Amino acid sequence: MTLPSLSDIQSANLRISPFIHCTPVLTSQLLNSIFECELFFKCENFQKVGAFKFRGAANAILLLNDEEKKMGVVTHSSGNHAAALALAAKINGVKATIVMPETSPVVKKNAVAGYGAEIMFCKPTLQAREETTRMIMERTGAKLIHPYDNFNVICGQGTASLELLNEKPDLDFVIAPIGGGGLMSGTSTCVKGINSKIKVIGAEPLNANDAWKSFTTGQLVPSVNPLTVADGLLTSLSELTFTIIKKNVDQILTATEESIVECMLLVWERMKIIIEPSSATVLAVIRENPGMFRGKKAGLIISGGNVDFRKLPF
Amino acid sequence: MTLPSLSDIQSANLRISPFIHCTPVLTSQLLNSIFECELFFKCENFQKVGAFKFRGAANAILLLNDEEKKMGVVTHSSGNHAAALALAAKINGVKATIVMPETSPVVKKNAVAGYGAEIMFCKPTLQAREETTRMIMERTGAKLIHPYDNFNVICGQGTASLELLNEKPDLDFVIAPIGGGGLMSGTSTCVKGINSKIKVIGAEPLNANDAWKSFTTGQLVPSVNPLTVADGLLTSLSELTFTIIKKNVDQILTATEESIVECMLLVWERMKIIIEPSSATVLAVIRENPGMFRGKKAGLIISGGNVDFRKLPF
Repeated sequence: MTLPSLSDIQSANLRISPFIHCTPVLTSQLLNSIFECELFFKCENFQKVGAFKFRGAANAILLLNDEEKKMGVVTHSSGNHAAALALAAKINGVKATIVMPETSPVVKKNAVAGYGAEIMFCKPTLQAREETTRMIMERTGAKLIHPYDNFNVICGQGTASLELLNEKPDLDFVIAPIGGGGLMSGTSTCVKGINSKIKVIGAEPLNANDAWKSFTTGQLVPSVNPLTVADGLLTSLSELTFTIIKKNVDQILTATEESIVECMLLVWERMKIIIEPSSATVLAVIRENPGMFRGKKAGLIISGGNVDFRKLPF
Repeated sequence: MTLPSLSDIQSANLRISPFIHCTPVLTSQLLNSIFECELFFKCENFQKVGAFKFRGAANAILLLNDEEKKMGVVTHSSGNHAAALALAAKINGVKATIVMPETSPVVKKNAVAGYGAEIMFCKPTLQAREETTRMIMERTGAKLIHPYDNFNVICGQGTASLELLNEKPDLDFVIAPIGGGGLMSGTSTCVKGINSKIKVIGAEPLNANDAWKSFTTGQLVPSVNPLTVADGLLTSLSELTFTIIKKNVDQILTATEESIVECMLLVWERMKIIIEPSSATVLAVIRENPGMFRGKKAGLIISGGNVDFRKLPF
């Protein structure tokens, strides 16, 4: 198994930088005083399609060879990766097919269709998703761009930390959320490659703590029907992301639903920016472990800002 | 009646700049393509207390003489000016008393109290507010800092446009919301002082169109029980603000409630920043008058981001 290195992430950064936003790093005196530490918010909610996922998708699309570009790409996702792949493919003149559960919210279907991707609906089960995806690959020759179990996607996701450390190198911690582990793999590879003294922390909902369990036991534990407001963090690690995380991540911390919702509200109210619940998880682990972060400088990867305003958790 | 000049606003800027945020000017390719013009959002939602009001309050407090500082300040407001005056007073060691209707939302009472101001409750009528305020002035010698009918407050509000034009001088339009006219007075004085060719537009809810009526008829028409989602724009112009607006503003445009809510949602969804309904009014007038702005560059004063997330209009 080949693992990505810092130089792979640096190459990805050169490749995708004409297509992505270099997102701002925001600070808040008020949140610093509440949490008694210095917080640096790397705002991927301002990234194209409203999430870091565009970085990985853009890198994967730009690395297709001419033959692959002709055959197109496919993925199964109902979330940010679907929109990200659709847009990255459109910009580069590549056909994208997105397999979505027929039960996906209309707003998400519209977003993906709006970027010009073809949507194939399937039953809302993992098996149906995978079968539909395989069928499309066989029929069209399209290449699968997995949301996180993909070397090039991981390298793309790592570029958010590259920008963060470029702007703010003297951090004590970098914290990112963990779902399938793509962002965490890219983040930890990048941060440890630049400065191994910076502690890399994964943030996970207590109600979807499969990565914490896997990390703690050393055995890959799948996520089974997790129930959390952090809807971007429902997926399980893959062998690839688990291997990278075991190697590079210092610690995984979990947060309760109450903490996640409270921290999301705090950022909305005080910083006036919209972050999704998955992003609030990184602040929630600080809230639950104040002693660990007091007086320290922490970079927080704010993963996205795609929220259904008609279904707010507060 | 002495009217503020550009140099008064420049002096205010030097005075308050150590205390305020120089807020960012944001752009959105997506909104530019929707509205077919170039939009530059001057984000006072990121200002201290979440609104431009801190600029005017800070300027007024910093211009108190020693005697006045000892006696303290008073105002009547249940909104952003109350919080702004409370914070500006606190920073400068001045006692502030805020007269608020006893029916004000708890969240607003807490915000003002959190900045260390004393709150005096009164019945929710204009008469009760004014009587309570007068009583406090007589009893304590406190100086009234009116939310908008105040020379120094107007000069402070004008500094937002000074920063905007400093960063983006080649605008065709500057658009700001109109409530009591403090922001509009400062904005129009500043913009016309710098470049009289830039058109200055006031944006007002159709359901609270007293400034439009006053501007159109040339007679000051008070606002009577306006019913609009733009809760920062309920007040009437004063003689001072009406005089300045007549002199400097090119046009007042109104927007329907539907447009205001739709534009607020659009900014939340696409720009991932939280703006209050009053701020969305400036985009709503562009939505309702596309021909006027097509192909042009417009600076939008985004007045604030204080929203009750439990009472969203969408």
